[in-house]
Amino acid sequence: MKEKLDELYTLIAETNDLARAEAVLGWDQQAYMPAGGAAARAQQLATLSRLAHEKFTTERVGQLIDELTKATRDLPYDDDTVSTLRVLKRDYVKAVRLPSAFVAELAVASGLATTAWAQARAANDWQAFEPHLARMLELKQRQTEYMGYTARRYDALLDDYEPDMTTAQVTAIFDAVRHELVPLTQALSARADRVDDAAIYRAYDVERQWTLAHKALRAIGYDFARGRMDHVPHPFCTTFSNHDVRVTNRALPDFFNSCLFGALHEGGHALYEQGSPDRFERTALAGGTSLSVHESQSRLWENLVGRSRAFWQYFFPEFKKTFRKNAADLDAEKMYRAVNKVQPSLIRVEADEVTYSLHVMLRFEAENLLLENKLKVSELPAWWDEAMSSYLGITPPDVAQGALQDVHWSMGLYGYFPTYSLGTILSAQLFDHARAQLGDLDEQFARGEFTPLREWLTANIYQHGRKYTLNEIALRVTGEPLQTRSYISYLKKKYSELYGL
Amino acid sequence: MKEKLDELYTLIAETNDLARAEAVLGWDQQAYMPAGGAAARAQQLATLSRLAHEKFTTERVGQLIDELTKATRDLPYDDDTVSTLRVLKRDYVKAVRLPSAFVAELAVASGLATTAWAQARAANDWQAFEPHLARMLELKQRQTEYMGYTARRYDALLDDYEPDMTTAQVTAIFDAVRHELVPLTQALSARADRVDDAAIYRAYDVERQWTLAHKALRAIGYDFARGRMDHVPHPFCTTFSNHDVRVTNRALPDFFNSCLFGALHEGGHALYEQGSPDRFERTALAGGTSLSVHESQSRLWENLVGRSRAFWQYFFPEFKKTFRKNAADLDAEKMYRAVNKVQPSLIRVEADEVTYSLHVMLRFEAENLLLENKLKVSELPAWWDEAMSSYLGITPPDVAQGALQDVHWSMGLYGYFPTYSLGTILSAQLFDHARAQLGDLDEQFARGEFTPLREWLTANIYQHGRKYTLNEIALRVTGEPLQTRSYISYLKKKYSELYGL
Repeated sequence: MKEKLDELYTLIAETNDLARAEAVLGWDQQAYMPAGGAAARAQQLATLSRLAHEKFTTERVGQLIDELTKATRDLPYDDDTVSTLRVLKRDYVKAVRLPSAFVAELAVASGLATTAWAQARAANDWQAFEPHLARMLELKQRQTEYMGYTARRYDALLDDYEPDMTTAQVTAIFDAVRHELVPLTQALSARADRVDDAAIYRAYDVERQWTLAHKALRAIGYDFARGRMDHVPHPFCTTFSNHDVRVTNRALPDFFNSCLFGALHEGGHALYEQGSPDRFERTALAGGTSLSVHESQSRLWENLVGRSRAFWQYFFPEFKKTFRKNAADLDAEKMYRAVNKVQPSLIRVEADEVTYSLHVMLRFEAENLLLENKLKVSELPAWWDEAMSSYLGITPPDVAQGALQDVHWSMGLYGYFPTYSLGTILSAQLFDHARAQLGDLDEQFARGEFTPLREWLTANIYQHGRKYTLNEIALRVTGEPLQTRSYISYLKKKYSELYGL
Repeated sequence: MKEKLDELYTLIAETNDLARAEAVLGWDQQAYMPAGGAAARAQQLATLSRLAHEKFTTERVGQLIDELTKATRDLPYDDDTVSTLRVLKRDYVKAVRLPSAFVAELAVASGLATTAWAQARAANDWQAFEPHLARMLELKQRQTEYMGYTARRYDALLDDYEPDMTTAQVTAIFDAVRHELVPLTQALSARADRVDDAAIYRAYDVERQWTLAHKALRAIGYDFARGRMDHVPHPFCTTFSNHDVRVTNRALPDFFNSCLFGALHEGGHALYEQGSPDRFERTALAGGTSLSVHESQSRLWENLVGRSRAFWQYFFPEFKKTFRKNAADLDAEKMYRAVNKVQPSLIRVEADEVTYSLHVMLRFEAENLLLENKLKVSELPAWWDEAMSSYLGITPPDVAQGALQDVHWSMGLYGYFPTYSLGTILSAQLFDHARAQLGDLDEQFARGEFTPLREWLTANIYQHGRKYTLNEIALRVTGEPLQTRSYISYLKKKYSELYGL
């Protein structure tokens, strides 16, 4: 068994190296690559992706997984080897369903689409992007055929990002949440003048914003000896090893939230990845378990920490030191209120806590309609505007701020959006339990103490890598599967107080 | 034949993609990677390198090359396919001769030697490095046995970097050059006070130096839409495709030459790579033909252009605009003189145009003596000091500034040094012919016109990628193989005038 285990682990280590190399090329593509590099980069990414896929999908790998699974059947579910084999089996079954040629085709198309999207968005030109979106949809439809599905086409794609969830389950969760959020949004909108957020729209020097974002990342425990932060148009976090986890971010000269909360959001992802144990490196258990659980960490650090009153009690002096002139008339409470204004807005990534999930639900619906051919690509911008109007009561003035705002669909990420909200919902559930076990978190935050929370999350989530699924984690940590109670109650309590409902 | 050609080209395209991915990871490693990333990055690079090697060294590749070479024997030497097969054959024969166990042994030894070298240099301790150098020499001697050679052991190593040259040819060229350079250096040293270079040791703001370097790169035609310049400790140029050629550089606060001439040097390499035609991408013909020909371009743009009086007539106003206060007492002629001071010095990488090749020759001789067991490792420092004294009239005060200064021998780069000078010698030969065909280059440079020269180099060299060897290029472009006449005459004319000889 030792020999076969070594054989399998060596193969996985190599596919892991190829995937990490792909991540480096993808990071450079967003952060530094000159425009001219796009075509060759798409081919390089395609080759890496195909080789990793080829290496992983041999019959020998399947055979090794099955034989070793049998040989280890008496070991506990939580055992590293057993868990590795379980996760590998899940990945393997998925991977063998996609022909290598298709994977390469997808990689080339998405490389080209991503570049086209960036140009189209800059030019506010939907038609330039249409053929790329149509091509990506066609490929993703083919992917659902390869993968197979029973109820909905979307199930086959969702499973890639959240291997624990079905479209029906997501629909039910989203319905329950929307049922509360739409009236809450309306109630808060009616009292919009109760919260003044002028402070976040002042001119803040972008380099100072960048410095402040570094301070915030250091405060929550992001390790810069094992990471860095670079400028990109659309922030993300990417992992080259648990000792090299990169945050990317952007700073806008007259919108304060973008840079600081971008850093805390990506920093939350990064804490998860930096917390993945060394013994999982180059194995199937390295990293985070699913997109939703990942998002539970980014949203937790961004919102439940970064948008808390206690955080601002601690952080305001840093803010004031950084922006002396601009902050003269502000205080911790004013900033706390300003960064928590609820306001129906156009851009998902800049949305407040209350309206955020409505943006996600809109995309979840659009994806389903497009994939099931119930909506044409050319019709999307108009459909989008209508949905925005019905959920949020506003309409985008142009397509760059509407259907062209996200990079996901160019990259082939369909079924990905709902994980943003599932993660957000999970974050409140986890936070409730952290609070129950760690005592007064607010007091700790107000003193700049984030280590107890980070260590609690490391012990309960980060140290397990990919070992457990979303609902397994929810059950282990909170005693019940994903529930919407904590999330709704968190939003209602916080915003009723802020808006005097 | 079409089918076999497709099969071979697809395989080569894949190995090419892997090599380019390796280049991206290597670039990030130098330019952006946090310290924590080192261990995982080494593994990722090793995996990419091994996979590319495995893919290229199969029997099938050898078979395809041979069959296709036979099938195309009636096509002309210059034909793209014929040339591709010729270059592939050369690469293939080399790649398969080294047993992979030996390659691994070499990698381990050079890893240890490089670490030992860094420590030994810091401690100024030759004896600590001796066993590692001895071990590397023993391995490189074994490598020459694997590779095979007729006249000199060194031939087998030189061939890796300059597949057109023998040790005998290099010796003849270097003897001719040294015969002229030693007395020229002595004559110039006697008149050292004729040229004042204080201007280059002033404090120049590093960000402004960076801006100026960008201007210089734009001026010579480096295309920033297909490249960029990033900060590293040791500048290099790297290619991810002919549409993404990156320059790296450094700026020192009180030594002006480093940033500007670093940019022009790496920019010269980059023009060559950006000039490689699209149809060669992902084939064996992509890129530059050899280290010497590559160096002919970096040295040409750095020295024959960037250190010319005409360049400074054009560029001084830019310099003055950039460094208003510091440049108040300077003019074009003063800067031209300052950047051209000749001064025998201890460190190769900081040497001027006249003395540079003497540093290289010394290393070429040492490598041959060591490889042929005519010099013991323990005797090298004394031999080095004597050679420095006889060539340059100076003696290193310690071994760190003597035989321990370069990293090359720890890394296993034997036969590499001469290409620095061969390239420099070739640059003068090419430049003579450019001048003969393009008219008064000085007048063009003084007006900031570098396009005619760049287009001439593109037509004569860059567009051929790896098709021709050094001497084939020299013959095609100048009607004769590599000669030292142009180089000697260029140095004598320029420096006699500068120093009033």
